[in-house]
Amino acid sequence: MKMIPKIEIDVVTIFPDMFKALTDFGVISRAIRDEIVHFKAHNLRDYTKDKHKVTDLYAYGGGPGMVMKPEPFFEFYDKYIEEKGTKPYIILTSPQGKHFDTGDAERLAQKKNLVFFCGRYEGIDERVMNIVDEELSIGDFVVTGGELPAMLMIDALLRFVPGVVGDIESVKNDSFYNTLLDHPHYTKPRNYRGMEVPEVLLSGNHKKIDEYRKKESLLRTILKRPDLFIKHDLDEFEKRVLVNIIRELISNEK
Amino acid sequence: MKMIPKIEIDVVTIFPDMFKALTDFGVISRAIRDEIVHFKAHNLRDYTKDKHKVTDLYAYGGGPGMVMKPEPFFEFYDKYIEEKGTKPYIILTSPQGKHFDTGDAERLAQKKNLVFFCGRYEGIDERVMNIVDEELSIGDFVVTGGELPAMLMIDALLRFVPGVVGDIESVKNDSFYNTLLDHPHYTKPRNYRGMEVPEVLLSGNHKKIDEYRKKESLLRTILKRPDLFIKHDLDEFEKRVLVNIIRELISNEK
Repeated sequence: MKMIPKIEIDVVTIFPDMFKALTDFGVISRAIRDEIVHFKAHNLRDYTKDKHKVTDLYAYGGGPGMVMKPEPFFEFYDKYIEEKGTKPYIILTSPQGKHFDTGDAERLAQKKNLVFFCGRYEGIDERVMNIVDEELSIGDFVVTGGELPAMLMIDALLRFVPGVVGDIESVKNDSFYNTLLDHPHYTKPRNYRGMEVPEVLLSGNHKKIDEYRKKESLLRTILKRPDLFIKHDLDEFEKRVLVNIIRELISNEK
Repeated sequence: MKMIPKIEIDVVTIFPDMFKALTDFGVISRAIRDEIVHFKAHNLRDYTKDKHKVTDLYAYGGGPGMVMKPEPFFEFYDKYIEEKGTKPYIILTSPQGKHFDTGDAERLAQKKNLVFFCGRYEGIDERVMNIVDEELSIGDFVVTGGELPAMLMIDALLRFVPGVVGDIESVKNDSFYNTLLDHPHYTKPRNYRGMEVPEVLLSGNHKKIDEYRKKESLLRTILKRPDLFIKHDLDEFEKRVLVNIIRELISNEK
């Protein structure tokens, strides 16, 4: 019996093989193999109609760089609707868009039919925006193409699709899900080149370990990302740990 | 005669083959072939000393997920210094770090010996931070591993290494280099499914075209990213275009 994938993701790119970095490794490859997600990287050239399969041309009005032609994107769109009988939700990875964050990842994981358009060169013909639902940016910097940003967004959103990450506790404990930075981690050896694992982690006292980790998590957030701390709703346990942090700091001062 | 690469970038990962997405496509592959950049993806397992080449273990103090062991990172570090006779500048891609932006890309492009450590699982043993120079984050979301973030940062910084992007005008015109968003782009066909290319771009009047593009660039930035507009130093031309935008809006209102 075939499973119905929980989410279908198609990407449109001139370099479909780049997406092996996403599909051939780790948890994402497993999710594809287990048919939790259907994934396909389409070659934009397959949607051109001219004999040389041209996807980019010089810009109207002049200037450096090439612009991606509108037709292949519209041809893909028509074919998608014809074959699947449903409109996709189309994302363009673009430095013009909203900065992608964990909220976007969780929201997009709810969609059934996602498509990513990956730009290259100077940009995509503006008319393609008529079929784009959302522009998302990976940050304030420029990269050679939209492929790496799309892979990063797909990786992040798939973690919110049930069954992709085995241990859902892992997703919940990770940074940003609950808006505090993660606590430090230690594994063997206990002493490495004179650097010791904090004593409390070896104590077996789970109450103390939880307190230590929460304390580190709060301090890191306060020092490195006060904006996240300010947005975070503190629970009683966290407030109790905060009280201890401040009392300890004041008594050290004396 | 062999060229001396302008920058050496090494990455340490459990999935070196993922980096083909970076090294086998587009301008980056050309920069590697032309020896402008030396790039090598190292398998973390090659720096383990046990027979099973273990790179991760359970966390001290308990909790879900695995932690990457410290030794292989230190072994890599020692070998790097021994072979190259110089200390690398080590970046850990981590959600705890500063958000990577175009300023970081330009700054890191000046380094001669960059190394990226790519974390997987729950995190890296905290003691590795003793040899890490800088933590950089790709944004407020969690991904399965540090490989895609590292590739994105490397792509962005290589664009600032002379010779990597042929047309340096392209880099300068792109979003963020000059802190205004890019103007829209159009290419053939002139009329596609009833959607027309803006008349001015077909006029051949370069003064008008420059004004149109600057106007679009300013309006997009003001509407989508007022924070960038506020940080931007306006030159005389931009201020003249702003005057026209506001006069036009007021006269439309009447």
